[in-house]
Amino acid sequence: MSDQSSDTILLSHGSGGKLSHQLVEDVIASRFSNPILNALEDSARLNVGGACLAFTTDSYVVRPPVFPGGDIGRLAVCGTVNDLAVTGAKPLYLSCGLIIEEGFPLSLLETLLGSMQQAAREAEVQVVTGDTKVVEKGNADRIFVNTAGIGLLPGDRDFSVGRIQPKDAILISGTLGDHGVAVLSEREGFGFASSLRSDCAPLNGLVESLVAACDRHGDRPSLVHFMRDPTRGGVASTLNEIAKATRLGVEIEESKIPVSGPVRGVCELLGLDPLYIANEGKLLVVVDAGYAEEAVEILRAHPLGADAARIGNVTDHHPGLVSLRTLVGGSRIVEMLVGDQLPRIC
Amino acid sequence: MSDQSSDTILLSHGSGGKLSHQLVEDVIASRFSNPILNALEDSARLNVGGACLAFTTDSYVVRPPVFPGGDIGRLAVCGTVNDLAVTGAKPLYLSCGLIIEEGFPLSLLETLLGSMQQAAREAEVQVVTGDTKVVEKGNADRIFVNTAGIGLLPGDRDFSVGRIQPKDAILISGTLGDHGVAVLSEREGFGFASSLRSDCAPLNGLVESLVAACDRHGDRPSLVHFMRDPTRGGVASTLNEIAKATRLGVEIEESKIPVSGPVRGVCELLGLDPLYIANEGKLLVVVDAGYAEEAVEILRAHPLGADAARIGNVTDHHPGLVSLRTLVGGSRIVEMLVGDQLPRIC
Repeated sequence: MSDQSSDTILLSHGSGGKLSHQLVEDVIASRFSNPILNALEDSARLNVGGACLAFTTDSYVVRPPVFPGGDIGRLAVCGTVNDLAVTGAKPLYLSCGLIIEEGFPLSLLETLLGSMQQAAREAEVQVVTGDTKVVEKGNADRIFVNTAGIGLLPGDRDFSVGRIQPKDAILISGTLGDHGVAVLSEREGFGFASSLRSDCAPLNGLVESLVAACDRHGDRPSLVHFMRDPTRGGVASTLNEIAKATRLGVEIEESKIPVSGPVRGVCELLGLDPLYIANEGKLLVVVDAGYAEEAVEILRAHPLGADAARIGNVTDHHPGLVSLRTLVGGSRIVEMLVGDQLPRIC
Repeated sequence: MSDQSSDTILLSHGSGGKLSHQLVEDVIASRFSNPILNALEDSARLNVGGACLAFTTDSYVVRPPVFPGGDIGRLAVCGTVNDLAVTGAKPLYLSCGLIIEEGFPLSLLETLLGSMQQAAREAEVQVVTGDTKVVEKGNADRIFVNTAGIGLLPGDRDFSVGRIQPKDAILISGTLGDHGVAVLSEREGFGFASSLRSDCAPLNGLVESLVAACDRHGDRPSLVHFMRDPTRGGVASTLNEIAKATRLGVEIEESKIPVSGPVRGVCELLGLDPLYIANEGKLLVVVDAGYAEEAVEILRAHPLGADAARIGNVTDHHPGLVSLRTLVGGSRIVEMLVGDQLPRIC
């Protein structure tokens, strides 16, 4: 661990930003070192009995467990489905591990399970195995949900970071920050929640429409080079991960980044940057530059991609760095998140 | 839910006993109803891309996280490996989801991860994907670990409850209650911890030696009919599950049940029944009666099965019930655990 960390775990270790990366890379991945884990993709790629699988897990600790546009149940299905989908896999099966605080209302549990089931239906996945633990009052914050997921990966699909090239276009499927701001607003009781809703949604349909349309061009490998759902740490963290992993640069234009009016308003009021705020139903795509326009149109034709936009491109200038051309024409480096802008958002 | 439950979640809902079963069956499984989940085995059986897989998950909330004979890291690997192994699957890959309380010592995290890696090495599985969340101080009890696991299931293996027949023999691979009593003793600071150690161990090697030896007989299907690792709720709960699912009876003999001297001592002192205490490295096996003696010998030849014993048999008397012939020659019904004898034991 670097000097920036201490000898205890900090909230920032869970933020999806710099300390999270240090913890995962220096302490966790180094321990379990194996070629599959070392890829540090959102899903592991496995070959089991001749089948090519994607396998992933996430724990959800969002506070409060119910927020405008979703709840921890919906989130737990969508988040894991999305981690599978961005690898190009077809999400199939989920596990569900519940840790519940004693005294949790049974009716709320039923609501959350109903949301899980509804999201599973939308994503066309099945919850096939589970586990429930109960801990004493005061020993957990209401409810934590873990899901792990298995997807089937067509053997010819490779949307890993290694396929990203200079000049590639960077697309986003819609407005940034909706999830994080909706949860924050609900939690803090800001009272402007009415127009704020989490974007929490399963992205496998959107991914499949893009990948299938691209496949019809017949280009092999696909003109879609890379996909990721920018959750904790936001788009800024995903782009920094890309820049770091590829040793290429990333340029984005502030004027092109879609942000809804209400989210922009809250961010200005509270001094938050939508680039760092978690999304739970947005797809970041890196495509061949020549395919960018068509890809944006395909995304826009899907209900979850109506506000899709090209927000920037990959470059061989400033390797490892993400630069933002600002509205006023200046340029600044977009760092990886340090500290924790919004804890407990997923 | 029946009248015995209330409208909030109780500690007993996590005990592995009667309320746990009601919660899982009435609230959770009914919601996600699908043929795979409805089997309510410890692992789901999946067919993915032509491969037959076992898939399972468990969350671990044991308090304290370090105890004689193991820690939450070792437990999280062994528990999930064992849930896969008892289906006859070869455990291959694990996920690891950590929920850590702010302020948790980094050095202890490293110890726990080291234990996970050591247990993974013993079990010959790889941790291939993970997730780490941090919650504010006071919002979780130190650390919770979730693992999900994938195993490869040879297509001709079926150790499901449907294979159990009247007259089958019931074997246990060793002494009961070691894990639960070791954790309890550590937690409560009883001071007689020195001779108590958790039995926490990966059972896939033991399972494989039994199944492979049996396969050499050439009998198809296998003379091994059913396997289960009796964790939460203990052997009593596993046997009740068998009796309920098969609509057969189960008879066990108290004099045949192996319990170590120190565990027996603690149980007598505290009024606990080893039949209800969690094990984390014991295998309960139901085999063809004619194969019982040989199976016990095979188990005893393995380091983890040295104290293996035949403890009873399946019967078509008293369907759905488990009866115990006591040391003094009487007979009593062994109910499913009601309430929670030892909370937070795994």
